[in-house]
Amino acid sequence: MLEDKNPSKTELRDLGEFSLIDYLTKDFKLKNDSSLLGVGDDSAIVKHGKNPSLISTDLLIEGIHFDLSYMPLKHLGYKAIIVNLSDVYAMNAYPKQILVSIAVSNRFSLEAIDEIYKGIQLACKNYNVDLIGGDTSTSVTGLILSVSVLGTVPKNKIVKRKGARENDLLVVSGDLGGAFAGLQVLEREKAVFNVNPSSQPDLSKYSYCIERQLKPEARKDIIDLFEELEIIPTSMIDISDGLSSEVLHLSKASEVGFHLFEDKIPIDPIVSITCEEFKLNPLTAALNGGEDYELLFTINQKNFNKIKDHPYLTIIGHATDIKNGCQIISGLGQQIELTAQGWESFSKK
Amino acid sequence: MLEDKNPSKTELRDLGEFSLIDYLTKDFKLKNDSSLLGVGDDSAIVKHGKNPSLISTDLLIEGIHFDLSYMPLKHLGYKAIIVNLSDVYAMNAYPKQILVSIAVSNRFSLEAIDEIYKGIQLACKNYNVDLIGGDTSTSVTGLILSVSVLGTVPKNKIVKRKGARENDLLVVSGDLGGAFAGLQVLEREKAVFNVNPSSQPDLSKYSYCIERQLKPEARKDIIDLFEELEIIPTSMIDISDGLSSEVLHLSKASEVGFHLFEDKIPIDPIVSITCEEFKLNPLTAALNGGEDYELLFTINQKNFNKIKDHPYLTIIGHATDIKNGCQIISGLGQQIELTAQGWESFSKK
Repeated sequence: MLEDKNPSKTELRDLGEFSLIDYLTKDFKLKNDSSLLGVGDDSAIVKHGKNPSLISTDLLIEGIHFDLSYMPLKHLGYKAIIVNLSDVYAMNAYPKQILVSIAVSNRFSLEAIDEIYKGIQLACKNYNVDLIGGDTSTSVTGLILSVSVLGTVPKNKIVKRKGARENDLLVVSGDLGGAFAGLQVLEREKAVFNVNPSSQPDLSKYSYCIERQLKPEARKDIIDLFEELEIIPTSMIDISDGLSSEVLHLSKASEVGFHLFEDKIPIDPIVSITCEEFKLNPLTAALNGGEDYELLFTINQKNFNKIKDHPYLTIIGHATDIKNGCQIISGLGQQIELTAQGWESFSKK
Repeated sequence: MLEDKNPSKTELRDLGEFSLIDYLTKDFKLKNDSSLLGVGDDSAIVKHGKNPSLISTDLLIEGIHFDLSYMPLKHLGYKAIIVNLSDVYAMNAYPKQILVSIAVSNRFSLEAIDEIYKGIQLACKNYNVDLIGGDTSTSVTGLILSVSVLGTVPKNKIVKRKGARENDLLVVSGDLGGAFAGLQVLEREKAVFNVNPSSQPDLSKYSYCIERQLKPEARKDIIDLFEELEIIPTSMIDISDGLSSEVLHLSKASEVGFHLFEDKIPIDPIVSITCEEFKLNPLTAALNGGEDYELLFTINQKNFNKIKDHPYLTIIGHATDIKNGCQIISGLGQQIELTAQGWESFSKK
């Protein structure tokens, strides 16, 4: 579970910046017609035809966003790309290109960075995106990744956070809270390992939750489904900070309130069991845990029949007049005002 | 000269991530028609019409790329943008949008970050670019900035590193070595300050060099000039790592050699005097210093008359057969093979 102690280590100082870029990107071939020029010049070049370009960027910092004591480097590379792709899917668009900047201290060998790029390459393959640029640098201490993503879609299909209207259905893909439950397991095992490095825990019963934390996927399949069902959501966001926080974002941008039904929020039984083991309310994990990278969106009620029995989609509520605010309604009919306790990075430290 | 000890300090933890983004970007209005959607959704949206989009990204890390003991925060914000814009001008294109990600530790107040954004805003104004997105985060220790830039130009005007042909003229804008000389002055003053904090040095005679280091500009004017003179360079790169390194890049990408004439390399007299004070060869500062953000390009000889007397442009050599390699030719006619001793970040630490 812990970082691979690779026996073959190449010092970065023996390589130089330019050859590092060459080395890391040599197996990345451009696949998309819209990727006109990749790594190796002052700028990369893309052309999305007559359609607009979408762009998003994320910064991932060791000790803040990830912990290398349980995050394998290949998974880190994979996840760094996924979280960015998710931002483009959340606009109902398709990511096409990424740029990756990486800064590492000298405690990282070439082989370690190569592992990160193997994860990046796998994400590029699975989601059909091209690596077209980036930057490499030393860091003072830890590892820093900065990823930018470019995507495209015909203008009339773009879905923003703004656009939900009263009575629209509120829908979520997949299930929630798993990534947070997985994090609890990993943090506990890290603590156990620190006390007893020879412990050999059986983590197989947690594998779903651990995978949700270490190797999340972006919901490209849902965007494909919208196309197939001829649905354009009225508003959409991806769930990176927890359901509460994302509902409040849609509410603020769309100027509507929301009713959420507690017993509709999709939580996998394994997540519930794991949460109970940690004396956590599974609903809290779903509402405030974050990092699930599912899609939260609103659709006009006329589309109800198209999605009502879909195994990957759950209707969890509906939009209301903004005056009602955002309310979560318990099984007994009690209304509780929704507040964001999502992952707010500055309040944490 | 040292970091402003601002009397009014607002703790970042009192603000939260979402309000920080709102706060920092509230005065940035979109100016370009191609900026369709800015800060506030999962992705930003741009549309460069029928022209391709250029994209570049840079990571700037405290303690590696800048030293806050002599770099005012507003200048840091300005320079972070300039170095990115320069990468787009180096393709003969115009930057239109930027995304800025910032990570800071709690030793930074809101007012400090605001100063950085004032510099970013000034660069946006001076170069007519829009801030359309980014990310904010805490860092474990220092300040990290990641900037991505998008630009555009008609496809037939794009200039790459590849494209120089034998006998093309090698031309550089402005003068070289100033940023490196400025760095020497600032490092010396930092050392003096550490010994005697009450010293009041007169730095006025170094102001040109210090400005080259702390507040560089990108050569938009040269791109405008190409348009006016109807010149499309055959290859181009910006000088971020030092002239040697950039000549070698053009050579490698274009598969040509170069002859550079030592006595043609433009060095400001103030830079020469400052270098001599530090017992540095001014030529070394020009060849290996870096951070001048001038443009280095090749043009067909037929364009000689258009540029020969231009005050901002200097012909410093010409392209040769690749078999000759890259040679610098001294005033006495001696040939010395050019080697890159530019800023290679991994070999430094």
